[in-house]
Order: sequence, then structure tokens, then C-alpha cells
Amino acid sequence: MTLSANLAAAKAALAHLEIDDNPVSVRAKSRDFFWYSPVLKARLDHISADFVVAPKSEAELIEVLRVAYAHNIPVTTRGAGTGNYGQAMPLAGGIVLHTRHLSAVTAIHPGRVIVQPGCLLRDVDATCKAHSAQELRMFSSTWATATIGGFIAGGSGGVGSCTWGALRDLGNIIRLRVVTMEAEPRVLEFTGEELHRVSHAYGTNGIITELEMPLAPAYDWVEMFVTCETFPEAARIAADLGREDGILKKLITVFEAPIAQDYFQRVAPHLAPGQAVLGLMIAPHAMDGFLTFAARYPGAKVIYRSDAHDWPRDPGPVFEYGWNHTTLRALKVDPTITYLQVRYAAPDHLEKIEAIRAKLGGEVLQHLEVMKENGATMFAGLSLVKFTTEARLDEIVRIHEAMGCMVFNPHRYTLEEGGRQSVDDRQLAFKREADPKGLLNPGKMIAWDEPGFDYKNVYAYKGMKRP
Amino acid sequence: MTLSANLAAAKAALAHLEIDDNPVSVRAKSRDFFWYSPVLKARLDHISADFVVAPKSEAELIEVLRVAYAHNIPVTTRGAGTGNYGQAMPLAGGIVLHTRHLSAVTAIHPGRVIVQPGCLLRDVDATCKAHSAQELRMFSSTWATATIGGFIAGGSGGVGSCTWGALRDLGNIIRLRVVTMEAEPRVLEFTGEELHRVSHAYGTNGIITELEMPLAPAYDWVEMFVTCETFPEAARIAADLGREDGILKKLITVFEAPIAQDYFQRVAPHLAPGQAVLGLMIAPHAMDGFLTFAARYPGAKVIYRSDAHDWPRDPGPVFEYGWNHTTLRALKVDPTITYLQVRYAAPDHLEKIEAIRAKLGGEVLQHLEVMKENGATMFAGLSLVKFTTEARLDEIVRIHEAMGCMVFNPHRYTLEEGGRQSVDDRQLAFKREADPKGLLNPGKMIAWDEPGFDYKNVYAYKGMKRP
Repeated sequence: MTLSANLAAAKAALAHLEIDDNPVSVRAKSRDFFWYSPVLKARLDHISADFVVAPKSEAELIEVLRVAYAHNIPVTTRGAGTGNYGQAMPLAGGIVLHTRHLSAVTAIHPGRVIVQPGCLLRDVDATCKAHSAQELRMFSSTWATATIGGFIAGGSGGVGSCTWGALRDLGNIIRLRVVTMEAEPRVLEFTGEELHRVSHAYGTNGIITELEMPLAPAYDWVEMFVTCETFPEAARIAADLGREDGILKKLITVFEAPIAQDYFQRVAPHLAPGQAVLGLMIAPHAMDGFLTFAARYPGAKVIYRSDAHDWPRDPGPVFEYGWNHTTLRALKVDPTITYLQVRYAAPDHLEKIEAIRAKLGGEVLQHLEVMKENGATMFAGLSLVKFTTEARLDEIVRIHEAMGCMVFNPHRYTLEEGGRQSVDDRQLAFKREADPKGLLNPGKMIAWDEPGFDYKNVYAYKGMKRP
Repeated sequence: MTLSANLAAAKAALAHLEIDDNPVSVRAKSRDFFWYSPVLKARLDHISADFVVAPKSEAELIEVLRVAYAHNIPVTTRGAGTGNYGQAMPLAGGIVLHTRHLSAVTAIHPGRVIVQPGCLLRDVDATCKAHSAQELRMFSSTWATATIGGFIAGGSGGVGSCTWGALRDLGNIIRLRVVTMEAEPRVLEFTGEELHRVSHAYGTNGIITELEMPLAPAYDWVEMFVTCETFPEAARIAADLGREDGILKKLITVFEAPIAQDYFQRVAPHLAPGQAVLGLMIAPHAMDGFLTFAARYPGAKVIYRSDAHDWPRDPGPVFEYGWNHTTLRALKVDPTITYLQVRYAAPDHLEKIEAIRAKLGGEVLQHLEVMKENGATMFAGLSLVKFTTEARLDEIVRIHEAMGCMVFNPHRYTLEEGGRQSVDDRQLAFKREADPKGLLNPGKMIAWDEPGFDYKNVYAYKGMKRP
């Protein structure tokens, strides 16, 4: 690989830092879980950075940004690369800034933790639990491998959202410390309304170097699988359980048959054909309340609980069947599977889901996650889709939208297309201020590159490296 | 005082226990806060037990019940006597069973506490906080003086209900241990659906001797007063704050003007005429989120926060202005004040309250408490009423009901009239089993004494001691 003069100069200027320029590992560190999407797979598979830098301190990180700015080198920041939207992929090449060494838990207080972005979610929880029996309010199903910085920069919610709502909700992020991409990078502290400028921005307008997050008490959650004979009953139970204010829970997931039968190898032997499955995490002191609740639904049967079971093969954490791990498990068995993210809002969410099932059953399998939204419960659908063509996938999206179900399209690599298909003015305004050269994670914010884009077709970033 | 032969025999049989038969203190221990209601005051002021027994163990308590059963003596159980419905008052005389010595915190685990009924709410919290930074999910505003047994036997919710819902909701009581009133009292353990048989039953069908309650993390709650220029804005803020899933809170109270101006002596100097006031408890790590939320309401102004203020006179705990402490403070200033308990359910609760204000403004002042109910937020109204006559008070109740607002009438001493004006079959069935002679807190369960009662007029217990 020959580097451009600028790249070579930047690399030389950073030579005293930890640099990886081995093409095989650079390519590996330039990828995330974009391949969940056949659409993204077709477009991004060739993407690779020119080299990777892993700063060991905020000062080193600032140095990387200062040098990259001086030499006009794009910088794409990466945690563990477990995102699904290609958000950690350097479309225009340049530098991947790897946060692995910025992994310290800096301080723990009652109800909050201060932590660096490269700390694994699992390590945040382990440290907080050992310190004071606390844990993060919510995490992605990739808890064991994902970083907290990646979760905040690229995620929207997850395990815990059935109680606490989404990351964007007030109170679910306390403070973010962010470094800008300027001749002389600035270090800024964001709280309150300003958090939205940089959370879930894919690192397009600043690099998070410290996070202050709220904590909840850490309990030995009882993880369960519950079967129901029909999907509507399972969905009804999930919705009802979401509204039980006195039953403390961390996960309420619904799987339509045959998701669990076909894709959950250690669960399938315990299922009858056609059964819908609930995956749950309930606080131990709420188990009496939960079992009382469950007994009100004659069709519901607890087939597994993590604190008392005789399954010959331990299924592992139940949350590793939910959220996007459902898709991952399906993909491992059937490579033609992909997924959609659908918002089913109360009060008619159950009816909408049945209408979608009636229309798309067989091709689209329902996987629901209960979330709190504005004080009510709703479903985030991470529907499994049997992929045939991009055209058909787009049609399925349109069918959902025509039936009043908003889709957050995971087959797009831009913030806007994966979100509400509209510009986030706060993020754009801050990018103008913090990344005037447009070097941070280029190609991910349409509003920056092509403000007049009409969203009729897939956005194609013109600066993308050629295959 | 001359005792009947039965009473004298019972007293003699219990002579080795702690007995109080001093008429002055027996009368004091036969009263609760029934005098909040002029209606109850007129009917119950003369009530007094024959003597008081304070057992020092469950074994002694069983002995009291066994002896009372043998001699046909009514037994009314009492905590601290801070209830408002006359629920601890021995209408037919007999024995008051005082739980003051049954006050041990037996065990504390992550998320739950096991405690005896006579333990003060304040002491439960202090013990749990010292042990493992935990506290009760909810408590009455009489936290400093009330017992946990009285709260469960006579309360329905309180400070904390804006997050956790009501005591009757699944998960908010884990287990109750109950002794029956039979020739040989039995000791029963109730969980799940069976909890409803004995919780909020005023001790009419069994005596609670142990409680297992869920705990939440104990935080140094930031207590606040916030002013708004208008009541509808304050109510709107309260409703909106109740729906903020990421902002951890323990109290959201709204006071219409001039409640705070006229009745809150240490708050009034900081208020302008006509301002509505919010009383709040917010977790310290949620304060950033709360202040961001509050800034969205231009009219809202934080005038006091417990962690940073310059008020010359500390107002004390903000929760001691809410729930029924509002009524207490009003009564101290204006003895003609009484109150109603009104349920304003979503989604049109704000509109209903405005309709009531339009109709009854001046005579009825709005005091609202945010509660969770079936996953949504609602208001429990503890409206202040300027009392004139019983007839007018009844009319005010009817006006509320005609406008679609359910009233839990605090001017009644029976379970049914103070509740939903219907028999609780589970409580009645258990009383048949556990108190076959009808000796426990007689006169409080209409279904037991007069099953055909039509609720058209105030129930008058025929067995009540004459003045």
C-alpha cells in the first residue's frame, strides 16, 4: 500500500503512538457488524482505513486529531465495532481511531459512573457491581464485547429500556466530554439539551473521551424463557408486563415462532412447534410478583429460569437472545436472514403488529422488545426478514410505513437514513463548529455532504473509497 | 370503669403482658387522625378501648388473640395511629392491640427487607440505608411517626408511588405473615394474589406479624419547591415529569394557590400571590436531567432545593408537605378545612381537573400527587375542602362523581365506603375463615355486618359503643 503524501506525513507525525498498519488487521479494525445487512454488505465490504491509531490518553487522542486536521486525513472512531449500521467504518479511508486503551472507570458515585469510552460495557458493570452493587441502567445485547463509547455514539437503547426508556431520554446520559477536530482541538463538556449534539452521532462531530452515566442497583436478575401457544398472547403478556410498575424488570422480549425453534439451538429442544417465546430479566425480589402476574395467563409457561433449571446445556444470558443478538443467531443458521427496526407505538401497537403479520407473515418474523417511551410502553420491533432482493426489502419497508409503522432502516449507513430521515440540526450545527473540514467519520451525515438529498433512493456517499 | 365479666376475665388472663388501663392513655391509644374529617369527628370522638395490650413477641400476640377469642372480646390493632379513616379505632371497645414492641428489622437482602409491623417507616429506612444503601420503595408522608404495619394495613401508596405505583400493585408487597383470630390462632404466610386478602384490610381479618417488602436504592434525594404562575401549567409539568422515564423521582406534588401561601409557613415568604407550587424529590444523579426538563417550561422556577439553598428557616422534608401532610398543615391554620381523595385518571386528567376547578373553585383547592397506575401516570387528588355541612360535603362528592372522577371518601370509617363502595370478596371470604366470631376491628367491614347495605347514606355500625 502506498500512502498519499498527506497520509505518510500524518503517520510519521504519529509514529510515537500505537499504530497498526498491517493490512489484514487494519481491514478487520475497519469493519463493524454491517454485514447483518446484505445491502450494506454489498456497498461497504471493501472499506478499509489506511492505518489505525490507538491513543493511550486523551492527550494522545488530541494529538491524533491535531495531526489529522493538519494533514486533512479523515478520522473514524471505533469502539469494539459491534454496531450494525457501518457507523464505525471509514468510508473515505484515512485513520481509524481505536479507543481500546481509553478504558478506565474513573469514578463511581451513588447512582453514577464516570468512565472512558473504550471500556467494555461488561467491565463497567463488573467494576460498578464490585464497588457498590451498581450497574448501568441499560446496555446493548453485545454487552460482553461492546464499549460504552460505541453504545452511546451509535446505539439508542437496549436491555434496560423496558424500565428506563431510550438513551436519548433525559437522565439516561449525564455528561459527555468531547474533543473537537480543529487546528487546536478543544475539550468540551456537554450536559442537558446539549447532549443530543454528540450522542448517537457516530463520532461525526466530535470524539467522546469521557462519559458520566447513571447507574441502577445491580441485582442477580432472574433470566427466563416463557412459552405461549400463540404469538398474540405472548405480545399481550409483554405489553401487560411492561405496564406492571411494581415488577422490576430489565428485559421483555417476544419471539414469534419459529424464531426460537429454528435459531436458538439450546432453547429449541424445549419447545413445541408454533410456540411463541418470551425472554425476560426480572429482579429476584420481583419474582413473586412476576409469577403471580404470569399465573393470570393460563397459556404462559416458564420453561427456563436461570436461578433454577435442569437444562443439560446452559443457554447463557437470555439477553444474548434479544435485541440484535436475535438477528445474529438467525444469521448464523440462515445467511439469507436480515432485519428491520420498526417502531410500534401504543395504544394500538398490538393491532398494528397483527396487521403486519397478516400482510407479511412468513417473510417477516416478529421479534419485539418492550421499551418505555414518554411514560408509556411501546414495542421496538427488530423483525427478521427473509432477504430476497434490495427492491423487495425496500418494498417491505414501504409496506410498514404505509401501515403507520415507522422504520429505522438498518440497511443504510447514514445517520439520517437510519433514523427519522431528517436532518438533526443540532448535530449539523455542532459539526460545522467542531469539524469544519468535515474529516470526522465522513459520509455518515447526509446533511453535511448533500443538504438537498431527497431520501428517495439509498444515499451513496461520493467520497467513498473505490473497491 | 367497670369491666364486663368477659373483659375482666380476659384482662386477668393477660395480666402478665404489658397492659395499659389508664383511661386517659387508653383513650389516646384508641384514636387515630380521624379528626381530619369533621364527619368522623362527630361520630367517633367518644371511642375508647377498654384496655390496651402491647405484646412483645408474636407468641404474646397469639396469646392475646387466643384469650380475646375465648372471652369474645373485640381486638383492634394499632400501629402509630396516623391513619385518617378511623381504621385503628375500636368502635365496639374491647382491646387495642398495640404493635409498638414488634419493631425489629429481621433481615435485609438485596432488594428486600423483612420487618415486624410496629417498626416505624423511618426506622426501616434508617436500618436499610445503614446496612446496604437501600430504602423502602414508598412510604406515607407520616414516615417519621407511622409504622410499616399500619401503612400496609391501612394505606394505599404514597411518597414513591410516582415511580412504583400503589401498594396493591404486584411486586410492591412481597409477603405478609398473618395470625388469625380463632380458638387456636393460626400463623399464615401470604404471597402473590393472596396478599390482597389482608393488605389494606384494617386488621379486620388477621393480624400482620411480619412483612417482607421490596427495597429500592437509597439516594440523597434532592427535595425541591418549584413555582409556576398558573395552576394548569404546574399540573402539566407534573404530568409531563411523571412520564420522564429516565428521571428518577420519588415525589411529584402540585399545590394550587393559595395552599402554599396560606398553609406552608416556611414556604409562603418565598411566594408571590397566585403562584402554584410543585413539591418534588429527584435523585441527585437525575438533577441534570430534571433541570434540563424544567428549563423547557419558561414559567417554572426552582425556589428551593434541599442541597443548596439560602432560606433562613429550613422547611424540613418536602414530602412532609405532600400527601396527607398537606391537609394536616391546612388544618393547623384553618380548622374548617377538610379533604377528599379523588382519582383523576389519564388521558384526560388535566381537563377533568380544570372542569372541577371551574365548578368548585374557591371551595375546593387542588392538591395533586402523581402516581403510576397500570404503566401510565395519573393524579391522586387530595383536594382541600372548606367544610360547611355534611350535606354540602356529600354534594361535593356527588359533583365529582357526576363529572367522572372517582372519590375515595375519607369521611367514612368502613373499608367499603372509603374504597370503591363495593365488597372485596377476597377480604370477606378470609374474614369468614380467620375471624369467625367477627371480633377483629368490628364495624369496619360492612359486608360482614350488613351485606345488603345500599351505600345511599353513611353507614352507621350498630355495635358502636355509645357516647
